Amino acid sequence: MPAPSSPRRLHLNAFLMNAGHHDAAWRHPRTQPERVTDVRYFQHLAQTAERGKLDSIFFADGLALWGKVKHNALGGFEPLTLLSALATVTERIGLIATVSTTFNEPFHTARKFASLDHLSGGRAGWNIVTSGTVDEARNFGQDEHLEHGLRYDRAREFVEVAVKLWDSWEDDAVLLDRVRGVYADTGKVRPIDHRGEHFAVQGPLNVRRSPQGHPLLVQAGSSEDGKEFAAQYAEAVFTAQQTLADGQGFYKDVKNRLARYGRAGDDLKILPGICPVIGSTEAEARALEQELTDLQVPEYGLAQLSGMLGTDLSGLPLDGPLPALPEERDINGNKSRFTLVAELARRDGLTLRELIARLGGGRGHRVFAGTPEQIADQLEEWFTQGAADGFNVMPPHLPGGLEDFVDHVVPILQDRGLFRTEYTGGTLREHYGQPRPAGRLAPSVTAAEGQPA
Amino acid sequence: MPAPSSPRRLHLNAFLMNAGHHDAAWRHPRTQPERVTDVRYFQHLAQTAERGKLDSIFFADGLALWGKVKHNALGGFEPLTLLSALATVTERIGLIATVSTTFNEPFHTARKFASLDHLSGGRAGWNIVTSGTVDEARNFGQDEHLEHGLRYDRAREFVEVAVKLWDSWEDDAVLLDRVRGVYADTGKVRPIDHRGEHFAVQGPLNVRRSPQGHPLLVQAGSSEDGKEFAAQYAEAVFTAQQTLADGQGFYKDVKNRLARYGRAGDDLKILPGICPVIGSTEAEARALEQELTDLQVPEYGLAQLSGMLGTDLSGLPLDGPLPALPEERDINGNKSRFTLVAELARRDGLTLRELIARLGGGRGHRVFAGTPEQIADQLEEWFTQGAADGFNVMPPHLPGGLEDFVDHVVPILQDRGLFRTEYTGGTLREHYGQPRPAGRLAPSVTAAEGQPA
Repeated sequence: MPAPSSPRRLHLNAFLMNAGHHDAAWRHPRTQPERVTDVRYFQHLAQTAERGKLDSIFFADGLALWGKVKHNALGGFEPLTLLSALATVTERIGLIATVSTTFNEPFHTARKFASLDHLSGGRAGWNIVTSGTVDEARNFGQDEHLEHGLRYDRAREFVEVAVKLWDSWEDDAVLLDRVRGVYADTGKVRPIDHRGEHFAVQGPLNVRRSPQGHPLLVQAGSSEDGKEFAAQYAEAVFTAQQTLADGQGFYKDVKNRLARYGRAGDDLKILPGICPVIGSTEAEARALEQELTDLQVPEYGLAQLSGMLGTDLSGLPLDGPLPALPEERDINGNKSRFTLVAELARRDGLTLRELIARLGGGRGHRVFAGTPEQIADQLEEWFTQGAADGFNVMPPHLPGGLEDFVDHVVPILQDRGLFRTEYTGGTLREHYGQPRPAGRLAPSVTAAEGQPA
Repeated sequence: MPAPSSPRRLHLNAFLMNAGHHDAAWRHPRTQPERVTDVRYFQHLAQTAERGKLDSIFFADGLALWGKVKHNALGGFEPLTLLSALATVTERIGLIATVSTTFNEPFHTARKFASLDHLSGGRAGWNIVTSGTVDEARNFGQDEHLEHGLRYDRAREFVEVAVKLWDSWEDDAVLLDRVRGVYADTGKVRPIDHRGEHFAVQGPLNVRRSPQGHPLLVQAGSSEDGKEFAAQYAEAVFTAQQTLADGQGFYKDVKNRLARYGRAGDDLKILPGICPVIGSTEAEARALEQELTDLQVPEYGLAQLSGMLGTDLSGLPLDGPLPALPEERDINGNKSRFTLVAELARRDGLTLRELIARLGGGRGHRVFAGTPEQIADQLEEWFTQGAADGFNVMPPHLPGGLEDFVDHVVPILQDRGLFRTEYTGGTLREHYGQPRPAGRLAPSVTAAEGQPA
């Protein structure tokens, strides 16, 4: 951790997605959609982000074929297997995988993250999400998805179980005493004997405590439930905020919630998304943005928008306004994204076509087109004006958009003293200035050996 | 596939396990138990196996902390994350992960194997197992584990669902038509709409069809249920057989079962386990075997044996005989291992101490100590006498035991024309002479787009 006198530095995460975040990126000549199932493509992206000294790379995830395969490039790597493959070709950058708490088991999830943390020498992060679509539920034997509040109840217990499992081995449990034939001190490996509302898990985990103790805990929902969950558990938050004022409001709101969980403001880093459309001149950046907009398939944009708004918009005139929308309380999917999109359309009086264009780059995340200097100015403003501890960087096209950011924006941030010029830590927790959690072994009741097998 | 006139060649799989298969290996000076949570250690093992042109490497798995952590080195990597990390440092060798059908979901499992298959360029294999211990059940909310027959019922349906998911994209579904903005032909991506006794899964998978179509399907249980399952689904079988006669009996039994599923003998390769204790002279090999036996901790051996036999043996005199045992039909864990061990003790009239020594190297798999020439003779005999299509090679100590096998046994097998001198195929299926399955897309009923998200 930095000394108290060291300057506050921002944190940068590269959010990687197929051919890029713009929904038409794969049609643009600067992208390589034929490579989205080639691990070497993602290796290049990870190594580029590491060259820029970014804190981490990150993959989103969903448990159903999103309704986009007709008009958008889908790589489809599962994040944990993909990040394990990237761990071996990188050395310092953090590796954040999205895993849902809705259709997984805490034992599997805790174990896979412990495994990734060992594999990567302490670089694993878990973006904790809930699954909120009917299509996901139907891949797991459910006809309807869980109600929003219940999903978060389950998520809280899921994380509690995972933490107990990661802590079921003390750091010094392995003795490796070849002479006496004692590998581990079983007094330092204990069952967790968890019995809760959603899970009953005996433990201990079958992996020793990993370099970071726990992976970095990340969260990405901005609803009331999501913000409260973040304040309780998350160490970094990805969020979509369109304006500085919105960003400041969210930042203050979430930071203010920390105290009730005995946490300080710095214990959680807030990273709004930014989709930077970079040009060597402002005109060039705007032209690139327009090129991407021109490549959009309206049918696709309308389907995406229907999903975000929980409202079937098909057949409506593209140059007309949004129809009347439900209330947020009636949305059981991504509540915060619903509200953001509805507010954006209302505030700026957008037609459907205009809204589709505005959402094309970042699906609700902020899009900013400009020169590297202008982009650095924006990041600095949000960072110094109480809206961000760093950014979730979402290049509109890949690999070029990430290369441009690393080669042209990062050096400006470094020159301004806002960003590291070399990694100072070896683990993801160190990059984000988060301490390694001390183990909290359950009180000894029974021996850990369990039944021999 | 080889032309009909090409000679029959054996298949070799390296079964990798921590410091080696002998339960005392980690105490031996030739092993490196301090490295069992270091991915570079496993990278070296994988590269060594690839240097020997072996068909594949393989990791076993269990979903609870086996009762061995006090006296045996436990790495604890989760196999799919570990193999993904090994995929990027190898080029040709197959990568076989054990995943249980008892406490997993077919959607997750199908997806992770498709992901590994893409990552590795077609080198993924799935060792399909059921989980049969109470300690595993208790990590997944169950107080008791599923009855043996029911576990296999679930396993069959699990595999059927996984196959449907892998086939839910036709090979040519991705069009990548940048000009028209059409990424995939959604007429070639379909829901599977599976509704069975254990699973309801809508599909399609959110990963396009992988290089091999399906991962190689491997199975490792030798009970009646296990043999029938293998005959129906498996393309390779790992099995523990102590004598040539037992091996021949098993081989004939399983091959004879294939016809009722419309399969030919060559559609399934049988690989008995062999734990080769290698010395430059026979005396040196026997001395190494004795050294390992002398390092055994009897308490550990007794606990392992109690687990295999479903009978608490603690406190019994080590130099006395086995007590009366239950019948196989009353065993709900690994039935075939129970029978093998009980038969071994009876046939050779072993005391508990002798039985523990005999099981130390391979947990019931055959152990053979000798020179490279003698080991090659044994492999050739089983291969030519109708007991094996290849071998599951289980080095007693690692990395040395694998290095010795690759450097000294493999060249003899190559000289005899029994084993490849170069890889001829690029995928795991090609190594095992198994065809790439044609897609079997479900009839079109509904569009694959599902709900937009």
